[in-house]
Amino acid sequence: MLLSELAGKLGLELTGEDREFSGLNTLEAASESEVSFLANPRYTHFLDSTRACAVIVAAEHAGRVPRALISANPYLDFARASALFVRRQGDCSGVSPLAVVHPSAEIGRGTGVHPYACIGAGSRIGENCLIFPGVYVGEDCLVGDNCILYPNSVLLAGVSLGDDCVLHSGAVIGTDGFGFAIMGGQMRKIPQIGSVCLEKGVDVGANTCIDRATLGATRIGADSKLDNLVQIGHNVSMGEQCLIISQVGIAGSTKVGDRVTMAGQAGISGHINIGDDVTIGPKSGVPKDIPAGTKGSGSPFMEGRTFLRTATIIPKLPEIYRRMQQLEKEVEALRNELAQAQGPDGGAD
Amino acid sequence: MLLSELAGKLGLELTGEDREFSGLNTLEAASESEVSFLANPRYTHFLDSTRACAVIVAAEHAGRVPRALISANPYLDFARASALFVRRQGDCSGVSPLAVVHPSAEIGRGTGVHPYACIGAGSRIGENCLIFPGVYVGEDCLVGDNCILYPNSVLLAGVSLGDDCVLHSGAVIGTDGFGFAIMGGQMRKIPQIGSVCLEKGVDVGANTCIDRATLGATRIGADSKLDNLVQIGHNVSMGEQCLIISQVGIAGSTKVGDRVTMAGQAGISGHINIGDDVTIGPKSGVPKDIPAGTKGSGSPFMEGRTFLRTATIIPKLPEIYRRMQQLEKEVEALRNELAQAQGPDGGAD
Amino acid sequence: MLLSELAGKLGLELTGEDREFSGLNTLEAASESEVSFLANPRYTHFLDSTRACAVIVAAEHAGRVPRALISANPYLDFARASALFVRRQGDCSGVSPLAVVHPSAEIGRGTGVHPYACIGAGSRIGENCLIFPGVYVGEDCLVGDNCILYPNSVLLAGVSLGDDCVLHSGAVIGTDGFGFAIMGGQMRKIPQIGSVCLEKGVDVGANTCIDRATLGATRIGADSKLDNLVQIGHNVSMGEQCLIISQVGIAGSTKVGDRVTMAGQAGISGHINIGDDVTIGPKSGVPKDIPAGTKGSGSPFMEGRTFLRTATIIPKLPEIYRRMQQLEKEVEALRNELAQAQGPDGGAD
Repeated sequence: MLLSELAGKLGLELTGEDREFSGLNTLEAASESEVSFLANPRYTHFLDSTRACAVIVAAEHAGRVPRALISANPYLDFARASALFVRRQGDCSGVSPLAVVHPSAEIGRGTGVHPYACIGAGSRIGENCLIFPGVYVGEDCLVGDNCILYPNSVLLAGVSLGDDCVLHSGAVIGTDGFGFAIMGGQMRKIPQIGSVCLEKGVDVGANTCIDRATLGATRIGADSKLDNLVQIGHNVSMGEQCLIISQVGIAGSTKVGDRVTMAGQAGISGHINIGDDVTIGPKSGVPKDIPAGTKGSGSPFMEGRTFLRTATIIPKLPEIYRRMQQLEKEVEALRNELAQAQGPDGGAD
Repeated sequence: MLLSELAGKLGLELTGEDREFSGLNTLEAASESEVSFLANPRYTHFLDSTRACAVIVAAEHAGRVPRALISANPYLDFARASALFVRRQGDCSGVSPLAVVHPSAEIGRGTGVHPYACIGAGSRIGENCLIFPGVYVGEDCLVGDNCILYPNSVLLAGVSLGDDCVLHSGAVIGTDGFGFAIMGGQMRKIPQIGSVCLEKGVDVGANTCIDRATLGATRIGADSKLDNLVQIGHNVSMGEQCLIISQVGIAGSTKVGDRVTMAGQAGISGHINIGDDVTIGPKSGVPKDIPAGTKGSGSPFMEGRTFLRTATIIPKLPEIYRRMQQLEKEVEALRNELAQAQGPDGGAD
Repeated sequence: MLLSELAGKLGLELTGEDREFSGLNTLEAASESEVSFLANPRYTHFLDSTRACAVIVAAEHAGRVPRALISANPYLDFARASALFVRRQGDCSGVSPLAVVHPSAEIGRGTGVHPYACIGAGSRIGENCLIFPGVYVGEDCLVGDNCILYPNSVLLAGVSLGDDCVLHSGAVIGTDGFGFAIMGGQMRKIPQIGSVCLEKGVDVGANTCIDRATLGATRIGADSKLDNLVQIGHNVSMGEQCLIISQVGIAGSTKVGDRVTMAGQAGISGHINIGDDVTIGPKSGVPKDIPAGTKGSGSPFMEGRTFLRTATIIPKLPEIYRRMQQLEKEVEALRNELAQAQGPDGGAD
């Protein structure tokens, strides 16, 4: 593709001489036949050393590179450029004779079902979906249009997915919630008779687990995105446009608002409420409700400024302890000195 | 079903007029055709607003709802009621011609083996088991009666399961323990020649991993329940009736007693002993032995009361640091004042 | 096998009378027909009670057991002995007629492909590999010689593996990196058009996920070993001979040096540098660069000695807070006493 073609497709101004390029790469790794971009200011210094033939940049940086694609939002325009180079995989038309589709299941037009996928009785798969090998869809599931179920992802019975959902490999939706109780010395299973409902545009990361509700449904709101190895407990209800990073765990019955971000390895207790627009930092431990709009981190979770100050002080704890012991000695010495200065009658008159 | 039938099956007293109902749901979500229950006091206020046609409640609350099923243990009776509404999935009789079962493997009566499951040489599967698609059972495994192996769960060679075990989707039992050592600058693998033994009634959550022992066996005691995404290292030995919540990790060779509860994301070091009836809070980091009966939390793990107090103080650390600096200034000022008050000869006579 | 044969194969001196043995086990669990070893000093006391017929030990301990195999490195020699007892599993010659191999894919000599494995268009699998059931290899992947892909492991399109790599069950390599951004109120996916490259000798644990790069490649260096349930974000670049223990998460674009060890549940932020020979303790939270050679732990990450001291002090925080309040009272009292002692004119002359 020519740089001028790319500029045309993205509606950007190209500075410098036109030429062919072969793909996209980072500033650091790009070869002379690749285009790059600058979105994170931390990488600005790479502008001087990059071999990229052109860079998608804000106007202020355009003069630092031989050829620039000037953008008001370089990250967005890089994303749009990338979309032109996405590798399609697993293309497949129709239902493979090596797939097992129950006679009562319905498969929409344009949907491809690979070998070794299984679709259970009563399930309905929408149009233009892609069902990879090793996928299991249990009984009475609903899958919307344009969904992708990557290899070995699993929908247990009765789960429903809106349009445009993506399940990455090994994702498991609708496994029984963890409901056990020791009653009278006996371990008893609490039956999990609810389901799971993913709204439109939800992505579920590789090996992420979303549990079936005890009653009712576990819900993930439209356009929420879950990264890999995340655990969503039974009866969690999550709003729209949330970003849940890898290895986060959300315990049962917790309610999460819209546009909530949870960074990696955060853990959220059960039966609590996380308001809209909350941002939770990495490794946070959240034991109770968080009001809307709060940004914070830590275990226990603290508002952001408190967390940052606390994080600075924790490594000083040994020093603090020593200084406190020193203070105790000094106060003791002062008390003795003062008593002595006041003489035997203690200045108490 | 009629409310009176449900009351009869559970042996509970029904107050109010009989009527039909369609299922169970939470107090908050129940429609007028559904029955609900109250077990967690935090939800008592929903009694006033629920639309449920009847509620399983303790006698003290029976007057607050139009129809009550009076129970000495509402949670238990809800569980018993739920069992009447459990969705059966994956029913299957006999061995699918699309499954690969080695001629030397034995499959018990009443056991269903779905398409695309593989059962290795020398393995024996008990009676009335259900083996879903994509399950892999390696060579020389033993699986007891009434076990359920959900889609894409994996037993590597030589693993044994007691009766009534459940493996949820993507669970992996018997993968090599993580045994590597850099010796003389070379990375060497320590062969893992042991196995894994799950006793009767063990549940293993989705995508949970239990490693093969280096020597001997990794053991999980009867009726212990593991949630999703849990990691059990090689040669761990766990007692009976343990509850291990999601994303917990237990490192190699650690011994865990009976009736131990570990909450989400707790991490347990290797080569230590956790006594009977220990409860470990969420996100705990346990570096050393815990005596029987201890309840606690934190990283490092602390006894419960200490943990709670500590958790209150951590967000005050910035304030504590400031107050300590203030104290140091004041003590310094006092020392100076006292020296001045005592005059040049220092009151040392 | 005779003890003398074992001694001969390992090149070790045998003390005591020769006899047959059946296998290897730990000191604690060994029967009289098994050989054991002592490598961890914490288990030295088991020498007195073990029933093992012989023990691989350092010379200093040889006198404490009836038969010793005297070793300068008992752990290494135990590993060498174990290698003689490794169970082979999944042996398989050639491509199963129940596997789906695209006509354009190439399978090397001596490689076995089990039923229900899928190999995509344009992929090349080396010699003497073992591909278990349920494995998915997408389009245009490269797999070196002597690789083992355990059941249900997944390579998405375009991933490359060097020789001698092992993917344990459920490992997922090359799923899309987590690239989303809310732009103008809309959730947008950032296309992930890079790939993943594992060099020679990399092991990937069960259900571990390694994400495809946004651009370029996510790289794992030669002989690095990843345990189960690990998350490697897009564009991570890891050096050689690293040991990454279970449930670790490394966020996107972070660079990790050679011979780095990360203990269980550690979390590493994105876009940072971890130097060579760094050791990161369990549950650490690493927000910024760590220089080469550092050993430490904690969240936030601290140098080792600071961490150990801090961990001792955290449980004392309630006591520290109380002592500080006490100090404040005493200083206040001293100030008052001193003011009184100095009289109304304050000693200010």
